[in-house]
Amino acid sequence: MSAWVLPDHIADVLPSEARHIEELRRGLLDTARSYGYELVMPPLLEHLDSLLTGTGEALDLQTFKLVDQLSGRSLGLRADTTQQVARIDAHLLNRRGVTRLCYCGPVLHTRPDRPHATREPLQFGAEIYGHPGIEADIEAVLLSLECLRSANVQDVSVDLADVRIVRSLLAGLPVGLQTLARVHAALAAKDASELTFLARDFPANAREGLLALLQLYGDASVLDEAEIALKSISGVRQVLSDLRAIAARVQSARVTFDLADLRGYAYYSGARFAVYAQGASDALVRGGRYDEVGAVFGRNRPAAGFSLDVKQLVGVVSPRPLKAAIRAPWGEAPDVNAAIAALRQQGETVVCMLPGHGSEVDEFHCDRELVQVGGRWVVRAL
Amino acid sequence: MSAWVLPDHIADVLPSEARHIEELRRGLLDTARSYGYELVMPPLLEHLDSLLTGTGEALDLQTFKLVDQLSGRSLGLRADTTQQVARIDAHLLNRRGVTRLCYCGPVLHTRPDRPHATREPLQFGAEIYGHPGIEADIEAVLLSLECLRSANVQDVSVDLADVRIVRSLLAGLPVGLQTLARVHAALAAKDASELTFLARDFPANAREGLLALLQLYGDASVLDEAEIALKSISGVRQVLSDLRAIAARVQSARVTFDLADLRGYAYYSGARFAVYAQGASDALVRGGRYDEVGAVFGRNRPAAGFSLDVKQLVGVVSPRPLKAAIRAPWGEAPDVNAAIAALRQQGETVVCMLPGHGSEVDEFHCDRELVQVGGRWVVRAL
Repeated sequence: MSAWVLPDHIADVLPSEARHIEELRRGLLDTARSYGYELVMPPLLEHLDSLLTGTGEALDLQTFKLVDQLSGRSLGLRADTTQQVARIDAHLLNRRGVTRLCYCGPVLHTRPDRPHATREPLQFGAEIYGHPGIEADIEAVLLSLECLRSANVQDVSVDLADVRIVRSLLAGLPVGLQTLARVHAALAAKDASELTFLARDFPANAREGLLALLQLYGDASVLDEAEIALKSISGVRQVLSDLRAIAARVQSARVTFDLADLRGYAYYSGARFAVYAQGASDALVRGGRYDEVGAVFGRNRPAAGFSLDVKQLVGVVSPRPLKAAIRAPWGEAPDVNAAIAALRQQGETVVCMLPGHGSEVDEFHCDRELVQVGGRWVVRAL
Repeated sequence: MSAWVLPDHIADVLPSEARHIEELRRGLLDTARSYGYELVMPPLLEHLDSLLTGTGEALDLQTFKLVDQLSGRSLGLRADTTQQVARIDAHLLNRRGVTRLCYCGPVLHTRPDRPHATREPLQFGAEIYGHPGIEADIEAVLLSLECLRSANVQDVSVDLADVRIVRSLLAGLPVGLQTLARVHAALAAKDASELTFLARDFPANAREGLLALLQLYGDASVLDEAEIALKSISGVRQVLSDLRAIAARVQSARVTFDLADLRGYAYYSGARFAVYAQGASDALVRGGRYDEVGAVFGRNRPAAGFSLDVKQLVGVVSPRPLKAAIRAPWGEAPDVNAAIAALRQQGETVVCMLPGHGSEVDEFHCDRELVQVGGRWVVRAL
């Protein structure tokens, strides 16, 4: 009898955690709405082409595939929601101005992202389309921090990076895809000797710039150092100014920088941020600017945004205490049922004790009971 | 360029409808909680064995199948949540007394249930385990009606049936599966001549009882007629008494009966109900008693409950009007940002106009704006 065994990295969410996830979910959606982000609900299933075009191999490997009996075509279960929201912005809403959208729903992964990650994250995210200026980047960062605040996440830090710095350093150089991948890996590993080897034929300012990146992580002084070390590289000054503008608006969190960080290089087109918190082994939020995301849908709009996994979030915050319930007799008479209905209308949880089960204790802790005193139904402490 | 074309019977939910679905979802979950139902979140993916054992061929055909790369085993995307919740009751909670559980999440169907149905319903449901008495049936019906009331559904009627009546009529008769299926079809089609033919060798009271069922639909007088027509059939009196007990507690809706109705025969073990409303072409709610549902998980507990599709529900109720938003300038100065933050804390939606986009109109209708008057930030009507 093993019908109750679930696949690896797939789990039921039981009452106390489910309640907490639902509370977080509402807080996140309400926070996004308070900033003017409209909720959309893209489907779980789409044609594989739509889900994967332009997204790269990583997402392809993460995506469950199946066949549509109605059409014979290949479908995918979404492993990420961003692409779907870009499709909605591009085709369904088709607005000319700024569009702010948010979402919250499950995504499915063929393999866990991290050693103990679920294969069914509950992805919440927000996206702002149509504005190329740094204000959209700033709003994305601030909204993500406000979302974490709504979830009562403590001790938050924001890490900023920008793929345009490495792009600027390599601009115009004849670097093949294979070499590019090795340069990225060397930067990620902060491997100076490998990087020196790979950059041996690069112009001196590009080679020295790449090597300088290995040291360019830490607090805001990193930007001043970069200003000097990369002063001959075209475009870098604007990037540093953008990063300063974002950092200047973050007041509720520490800000750090890592100019060699290239995660999401294929995906992001500008500043990239990750938000960390005490108790979380990995970033809680990832986001940034990805102006190319709608291109495959024929509408290449500026875009910035972020996403997080509510199931990861619930692991690092303390649940709010559950409001205790009222136990009530199973009522046949109209007066007791009216009393019960009135309490429920007031937002109370009233658990009716079914005949024969009066002495049971269930998950809803009852601290009061509904009893008849002098012909009237009243609530008294248990 | 067709990357934005979705599979048939799969759709994006756009802002105004998404907001309404989210409101309905919260109302349904809050209503269930006010009755003491605890939220659980079973996974979208499970081993096919667990999803389908004991559920019959219909669900098998409706279930998308795929292969788990981690284990090589067959997985299914849930087409219904009831079986999963029974597993949670049986194995994870493993309580001895009454357990009340609710859920709300997507299910996926290989084919639409009805001609215009979505293949991705948002299934909400509630289940009560551990109580064999009629009170659990009553609570399921009343909670479902309260849920529809919370959604502002008008003009509701409850249709009651009970699979035990036909079972009692056929009890002890040597009826093969094929004949049984034909008997069910004849009852569903109210086909008296076919039924007469199939029952030609049955004892007179069974044959006459089956034929009597064809007329036994309508208001409560049906139960009195059945009491006479089926008086010689063992067990029927208890069933009729149960149906009367349920109907007696329904005050906010019309109640009708159809004693020949056998939908869900393989699944239900007692009273079965469906709730209809004006504007809905099919039942909004289906539920009843299914005491066998946990058997495959080794714990055959009494169970009653119901489910509904929030996406179907949203089609028959009017949305609440959206509270209009406040437009605000994109602020750099601390005072305007403090004013914006305070308004959001009060539950207002404040949309910051990004530079250059001041004249755009987005989905959030703004009826007020934040402006500086005499050095202070104030909200005034637009």
